[in-house]
Order: sequence, then structure tokens, then C-alpha cells
Amino acid sequence: MFALDLLVVLLAAFVGRVLSKRLGQPAILGEIAMGMVIGSLASFDVILVGSSETLNDLGNAGALILLFSAGLVTSLDELKRLGKPSLASAFGGVVLPFVLGYIASIWFGYSNTVALLVGTGLVATSVGVNAEILSELRVLRSWLGTLIMATAIADDVIGILIVSFMISFATSGVMPISETLIVLALTVAFFVLSLWLGVRLVKNLSRRVRLGRYDLLLAGIIFAVAVGIVADAIGLAMMIGGFVAGLMLGQSDFSPRLIQESTLVGESFFVPIFFVTTGMGFRFHAIVDASAFAAVIVVVAILGKMIGCGLGIRLSGFSRAESAVVGIAMVPRAGIELVLIKLGLDAGIFGDHVVSSLLLMVIVTTMLTPPLLNFALRRLDILPRDVQIGRDSNEEID
Amino acid sequence: MFALDLLVVLLAAFVGRVLSKRLGQPAILGEIAMGMVIGSLASFDVILVGSSETLNDLGNAGALILLFSAGLVTSLDELKRLGKPSLASAFGGVVLPFVLGYIASIWFGYSNTVALLVGTGLVATSVGVNAEILSELRVLRSWLGTLIMATAIADDVIGILIVSFMISFATSGVMPISETLIVLALTVAFFVLSLWLGVRLVKNLSRRVRLGRYDLLLAGIIFAVAVGIVADAIGLAMMIGGFVAGLMLGQSDFSPRLIQESTLVGESFFVPIFFVTTGMGFRFHAIVDASAFAAVIVVVAILGKMIGCGLGIRLSGFSRAESAVVGIAMVPRAGIELVLIKLGLDAGIFGDHVVSSLLLMVIVTTMLTPPLLNFALRRLDILPRDVQIGRDSNEEID
Repeated sequence: MFALDLLVVLLAAFVGRVLSKRLGQPAILGEIAMGMVIGSLASFDVILVGSSETLNDLGNAGALILLFSAGLVTSLDELKRLGKPSLASAFGGVVLPFVLGYIASIWFGYSNTVALLVGTGLVATSVGVNAEILSELRVLRSWLGTLIMATAIADDVIGILIVSFMISFATSGVMPISETLIVLALTVAFFVLSLWLGVRLVKNLSRRVRLGRYDLLLAGIIFAVAVGIVADAIGLAMMIGGFVAGLMLGQSDFSPRLIQESTLVGESFFVPIFFVTTGMGFRFHAIVDASAFAAVIVVVAILGKMIGCGLGIRLSGFSRAESAVVGIAMVPRAGIELVLIKLGLDAGIFGDHVVSSLLLMVIVTTMLTPPLLNFALRRLDILPRDVQIGRDSNEEID
Repeated sequence: MFALDLLVVLLAAFVGRVLSKRLGQPAILGEIAMGMVIGSLASFDVILVGSSETLNDLGNAGALILLFSAGLVTSLDELKRLGKPSLASAFGGVVLPFVLGYIASIWFGYSNTVALLVGTGLVATSVGVNAEILSELRVLRSWLGTLIMATAIADDVIGILIVSFMISFATSGVMPISETLIVLALTVAFFVLSLWLGVRLVKNLSRRVRLGRYDLLLAGIIFAVAVGIVADAIGLAMMIGGFVAGLMLGQSDFSPRLIQESTLVGESFFVPIFFVTTGMGFRFHAIVDASAFAAVIVVVAILGKMIGCGLGIRLSGFSRAESAVVGIAMVPRAGIELVLIKLGLDAGIFGDHVVSSLLLMVIVTTMLTPPLLNFALRRLDILPRDVQIGRDSNEEID
């Protein structure tokens, strides 16, 4: 029964938020942790959360609306200005974890194919987690927030190219050069068309059309879903499409009302479902199963991203503190890794041990980032003075 | 793929709204009509709307949030004051359609069992449709809106008692007196506990607890789902639980913020999905299959409700115009009839002809009410002067 499942998930989100605030942590941490509790209980049949399809769909809608809201508050000019450093950072943050993961796997005696795929598994940052934390800590609108989001988007694009290349190579043995070039060309075309032609069209439209209160948000959600479907068809994550849709609408006259409304709809319903269901995919026994290899993978995943991304930013002329913040923000992994794990398992390339190591890596990086980023931003005195942890202090709403 | 289905349904809702406004009709009419178009196309495989489970769940959530919002703006004192006339009206509106439907079926040569079930099928008003129209036309908050909502709730309770009694009787042949009495006792207990104890508890809580912006709406939705589950467990419609949850929170200090937020979330996403998916259940060929019996059933359903409800209101001392408005508002049928039709089919009691007649009745009553009520309220000069048709003119948001 869907209503009962929904009640369990929403209650978990609410309790997680309240506990997080008590501990001075971002709400997202408690939501993922409570999801992990529910997921672990469900695997022991203590709680039955049955209609997982609808919940998953709602969670995906939450990721889309979260990135849509993030796109709405992002300045396109700032994004263009920060394009180069963010590409450098994303590149460093992709190469270093990949190489370190490869070396570690070879060191532990795994085959070349397994090592390539483990390296690939450390590549892509989960853009949802950092969008949420930046929003909660009120830095999403700042240039630092834009830099982090730009790095995350670039990372996602590079990551997805590498992941699809490697999966194709590992399963067929042939280098899918032409396919990868096609995906690259489509991706470039998608961004150019959206951010050049799309932005102008939407801006013009917003000056001529007046939409009723409820119609505007409905139209915004329709637009986000449509662009998300296009992004998905190209091979990008659907939520990247949501971000691009937000960027387009964010430069138009629709923006001020849409920001308030989509943030409210997202944060009060869809986004918490996204993070609780993310947590529900984690199991406590993945932590219990930890081994030397798993520990090395976790450390390599964290340090590789922090150093790789941080170095890219530092070499672009930013301060040490700013580089550290961007590096930390890029640590969480989630989306694409789970696909990779499933594919690796199905193709018989991964054993249980590699799978549980990658799962542990996803859990630790996702859970570690909120408190770490919270700490770093406060320590580095980048946060606005009056920030109170917890979503009600979100800048998007004041 | 869920995202594609969602896109189709949301686009249909948007187009339906815009067309409705152009025609000076409530948005709901266009949403149901566009749903009907999609549903009919889907049955010809022109459009594939696949993930119907998630869409159904979202639609049900829409009904819950719609009634929750209606409960939030309803005055409990007014509701109590209007308790007696609304009971009289609901009683009249249940008895007359039942008797007329029974007589008509016998007249057309159907068996006693079929006639009893057809009569039962004409009993219960669909509370969602009139809640939405009242909200759009800004009369939900007025005493007339409260009278109509009270009549609809009373009708639902009486209707569900009769329907479950009749289904049990028709399938087992035994009069389920004791079960019906238990349901009646539970229903009374539910309303007394909620509206007496619950209202006080929530009011006290609202004075001591302060909730963050997004936490308040999340908590409100959690409360609505929880009370909805209780109502469902008793045998009432889940959305009646949503209305009662709204009533409880509506008398508290949480109310002003919650009204704005839950109406926004509902009207911009969930409620349109509810009405489009309702329309998707309808098929054009049900209209094409119309026959003499079907026509009689449709007429009996409309006149029985209008006269039965109207008479109850008129005898309670209200004006002729007011009685007519309440009578019209109670015409739409949807929810419980579809259950009855399915049960009648499964038990082999109904033939195709009876089923398509009842389906036509549901379609016509649902589609007819928005324009009729719109016309009646304007004609009778009950509407506020400045009302513009379309949801953006909703009083809940100004």
C-alpha cells in the first residue's frame, strides 16, 4: 500500500531533519541516515516498504526538482566566467581517482579489467548531494556555489563519457571510439543549444506570456521534465537536464516566483524522498563487511577527488581554502556507480568483494561530505554570518 | 518510462487548463477532458502511458492534498452550525437516486439484485470534483462552500455504509447488519475524536512548536497521509481523512502558512494529475455505446441528486437558489462507483450493458458539474464580483 510506504519515508525524513538540526548538521545527513535505517530494517523484514517503484520515481523527481532549483539560482554569466577553472578541476577530479583506483586494484591482485572498472567507479561525483548542501548553507547563489556546480556538471559529463566507454570496452573488448565521439558531439550540441538559443527563447517568451500562479510552476516542472528526458536520451543524467532547464528559466522574468515555488515543492516533499530512498539503497552490513581493500578504495576515492579537484582549482589561481572547499564538495559518489556495480555483477566481472567495497565507498563518501563541507565552509569563514543550519534558513526562501 | 508518462499527463493538464480558461470554464473541466483524450488514444495504442501505478498513486495523493487544503480553509464552527441541514441534504441525495435507480432498472426488466446495485451506484457523490470547483470559484471559504463540503462528507459516509452493505448483501445474500453497525460506530468515533480531541491537541501543539518553513508543509503532508490511512482502515475514503486532517490543522496557528503552501503544492502538481488520471479512466466508446437505459440512468442520477439534496436544504429553511446550488454541487459521481462496477463485473452480477451505462453516468455527471455549477453560482449572484475563472484567481493564494 503506497500511502503507508509514503508515510514511513516522509516520517523518516522528518525525524532525520530534526535530529540533524539538533546536531548542527545539514538536514540531508539525517535524511540519508534514516533511509539507511529503514533500508536495513526492511532487509530484515522488520518494516515492509513495498511500493518501491513509486517511491523510486518520486525520488528521481526529487533529484530533478533539486537540480532545477539549483539551476534557477545560478547565474549564467558567472557560470561562463568560471567555465575554465571548473573544467580543469573536473578533469583533475576524474583522472586522479581513476588512476589511484586502478593502481590500488592491481596492487591487491585484481585483473586489468576489474582494475579499469574499479577506477571508473571512483570517477563520477553525485551532483545531488552537493546541490542540497550548498542550498542549505546558503552558498548556492555565491560565486563559490556556481564554481562547485559547474565543476559537478563538468565532472558528470566527463564521468559519464568514461563510464559508458569503459563499460562498453569491458563487456565487448572493443574500444567504442565512434560511439563516444557521437555522445560527446550530442552533449556539446545540447549545452550550446540550451545555453545560447534556449536562454534567449525563454527570456523572450517570459516577456510576452503571463502565467497564472499555479500554471507557472506547473509549466516549469513540465519544462524540467522535458529537458531531463532529452539529457537522458543523450546519455547524461536526467537531473543534469533539470539543471539546464533551471538555468534557462533562471535568466528569464519567470525566475523570482519560480525559485520560491520550486524550492518549496522540492524541499517539502520530493527532495527528502530522494535522500531517504538513496539511504534505503545502503545496508549496514556493507559497513560490517569492510576489508583492507575496501578501506583503501574508500581512502583513494576521498583523497583522489579532493586532491584532483582541489589541484585543478588551485592551478587556476584560486586560494588554498577555496580549492579545499571545492575538493570536499566533489567527494560524494552515488548515481552512476550503482549502475556500474550492477553491470559489473551481471557481466560476471565483479566478485562480491569488489561490489561491497564499491558500495562502502558510496556510503562513506555520501555520509561524510555533509559534515565535512559544513565544517570547512564555517572554518574558512566563507559562510554568511547569520546562517543557521537546517533548511528553513535557506536563502532561496527569504 | 515514468518521466515520459509524467510529461504527457502534466502537458495534458496544462493544455486542458489553458483551453478551459479560454472558454470561461473551471480548469478542472479541461483537465478531465484532456485525460479522457489521452485515455482514449492510449486504448488505441496511439499514446503509451505505461507506468500507470505511479501515476495512480500520484493522483490519489492529489485527491488527498486537495481535500486537505479544503479542510484547512473550512471553519469548524460553521461546519457544526450547518451539520443538521447538510445531513438532511445528504440523506435526501442518497435516498432519491437509490430509489429512482432501482425503479428504472426494474422497469427495464433487470433482476432485483441488479436493480439494488444500480441504485447503490447512484448514491455517492465524488467529493473531489466539487472541492476543486468551489476552490476555483472562491466559494470554498464561504458558508455556502462549507455547507456543500459538509453535505459531501455526510453523503460520503452514508454512501459508503450503503455501498458496503449492498455489496456484501449482493455477493453473500446475508444482511451484514453487525458489520455495518461496527463501521458506523468506528466512523462516529473517528469524527468525534478528531474534531473534539484532535482539534484541541493540534491547537495546543501549534502554540508551543515552531516548525521551519519546509518542515511545516512536510509535517502537514505526513499528518494528512496518517489520518487518511486511519480513514481508509475504517472503510471511509482516504481523502475524507485528508479533509479531517485539514480541519484539525485549520483551527490551529499553523493554518495561514499551511493553506498557502499546500494549495500551491496541490494545484501545481498533484491535483492536475488526479483529474487527468480520472479522465484517463473514461473512454469515448462509453459515450458511443449509449442506449435508452443508459440515458435514463444518467437523467435519474442527475435529477435524483439535485432534487434529493436540494429538497433537504430547502426544508431546512434555505432559499430556493441556495438549495439549487447545493443540489448541483452534489451531482458528480466517481470514486466508489468504479469499485462497485468492478465488483459487480467480477461477481458476474452486471452485464456489459449495465456497466457501460454506469460508466456513462460517471462521465456525464463529472463533466457536467463544472460548467453547471459555474453557471448557477454566477446566475444566482453568489460569486464575489472580481472572480476570474481559472486557478490563479483562487482565494487561498491572494
